[in-house]
Amino acid sequence: MADDKKKVEVVFSPALYSYFENPGANVVVVDILRATSAICTAFMNGVSRVIPVPSQEEARIFKQKGYLVAAERDGRVLDFADFGNSPFNFTRDRIEGKQVAYSTTNGTKAVHMAQKSKNVLIASFLNLSAVANFLIDQHDDVLILCAGWKGKFSLEDTLFSGALVEKILASKKFNTICDSATASLDLWRMANPDLMAYIEKVAQRNRLRKLGLDDVLEYCHTPDLTTRVPAFRNGVIECCHQTAPVKD
Amino acid sequence: MADDKKKVEVVFSPALYSYFENPGANVVVVDILRATSAICTAFMNGVSRVIPVPSQEEARIFKQKGYLVAAERDGRVLDFADFGNSPFNFTRDRIEGKQVAYSTTNGTKAVHMAQKSKNVLIASFLNLSAVANFLIDQHDDVLILCAGWKGKFSLEDTLFSGALVEKILASKKFNTICDSATASLDLWRMANPDLMAYIEKVAQRNRLRKLGLDDVLEYCHTPDLTTRVPAFRNGVIECCHQTAPVKD
Repeated sequence: MADDKKKVEVVFSPALYSYFENPGANVVVVDILRATSAICTAFMNGVSRVIPVPSQEEARIFKQKGYLVAAERDGRVLDFADFGNSPFNFTRDRIEGKQVAYSTTNGTKAVHMAQKSKNVLIASFLNLSAVANFLIDQHDDVLILCAGWKGKFSLEDTLFSGALVEKILASKKFNTICDSATASLDLWRMANPDLMAYIEKVAQRNRLRKLGLDDVLEYCHTPDLTTRVPAFRNGVIECCHQTAPVKD
Repeated sequence: MADDKKKVEVVFSPALYSYFENPGANVVVVDILRATSAICTAFMNGVSRVIPVPSQEEARIFKQKGYLVAAERDGRVLDFADFGNSPFNFTRDRIEGKQVAYSTTNGTKAVHMAQKSKNVLIASFLNLSAVANFLIDQHDDVLILCAGWKGKFSLEDTLFSGALVEKILASKKFNTICDSATASLDLWRMANPDLMAYIEKVAQRNRLRKLGLDDVLEYCHTPDLTTRVPAFRNGVIECCHQTAPVKD
């Protein structure tokens, strides 16, 4: 049985992805504050597809094509966009059944670089258990790819990685000899008993506060609000899997 | 006073260095298992200079020039070398007053990429307090650059970074808003009460064990055996500073 175990690894930045690349792996893209939390919210509220776009220019082109566009810069909604990047903007009345272009530099880079792997899943605390169950059922190697912030390590993505590693290892079908996974798990276990107090230390928390965008912190760290697992393929994100009947 | 504070940041891999580069910073290169521990040992035992070399081919050229050469591959001393890469090989009777070429892939890459900064210091637990005191006295920004393992994050380098961050912040002359520094400090504080038990989890510990090279673990995590601070400049490492009269 031990030989059947698949490995789970954590990549702390897209800039480190090449050292871990594994075409047979399921790659899990994480950008807790705020891209993957917003995308999970969009699918929870019935969006049909989300197109991640890396620049304002491309977001504008999608607007001209008739997509709804979520795009902001320095905390302000761009003049041509329908709303900003906060998960709270992705309400059912706005997005159900529609296509949304979402402007995200770090997240777009991460999903594109992972596209040669088996699946590219979009994960956040909001769909934590659903993603974990999907990965355990699939039983392939897992690479958790943190979008980070401008190439740097980010604590909130790392804490989520630790929570996901914990669930995957608990299945007994995976193991890890990856120091990044070990560190993520230990930091998660340290932070988890009082997660919101720990998040006060996170650099991105302070960046968002300066922009008046920190109202999403508690929401973005709430587990299991949805069972939908979005996946990126051929440039678009669609709901690839749902572990239980639709109820959200 | 608060405005006078300098920043301390941790870089988890040479592949992330470009996101942190800061010409005014003192860069501290860390490769606990085993390069920077070996280099600190060499200076403790009176070596005159150490030349870090990235490949066997270059190590061979230094041998032909008359240098002592420390070089191994997969745990075996290379046929032309004088001894292997373990700190235990750098005994006073072998190296005092001599020049040594040291073959290290990760470490060489790290020191070369940092050479445009103010100083490039070589640090390990063996000279932890001496490096911390030097950095505090200099009072410039600090970048702790982990050599890692083949580009990846390594826990033992991270734990050392946390120990150094702790000492630097205790001076009240520095602050940090760097998530890597925060994570390093928290992991260090978690591991420190039983450091050798924690090191059992480290991936490099297992790689060294497989090669029969894990006799150095406890030694490489012993603080303050020397007050010498080696520094890299123009391709060579020399002792740049000593915080107390020579006694080691």
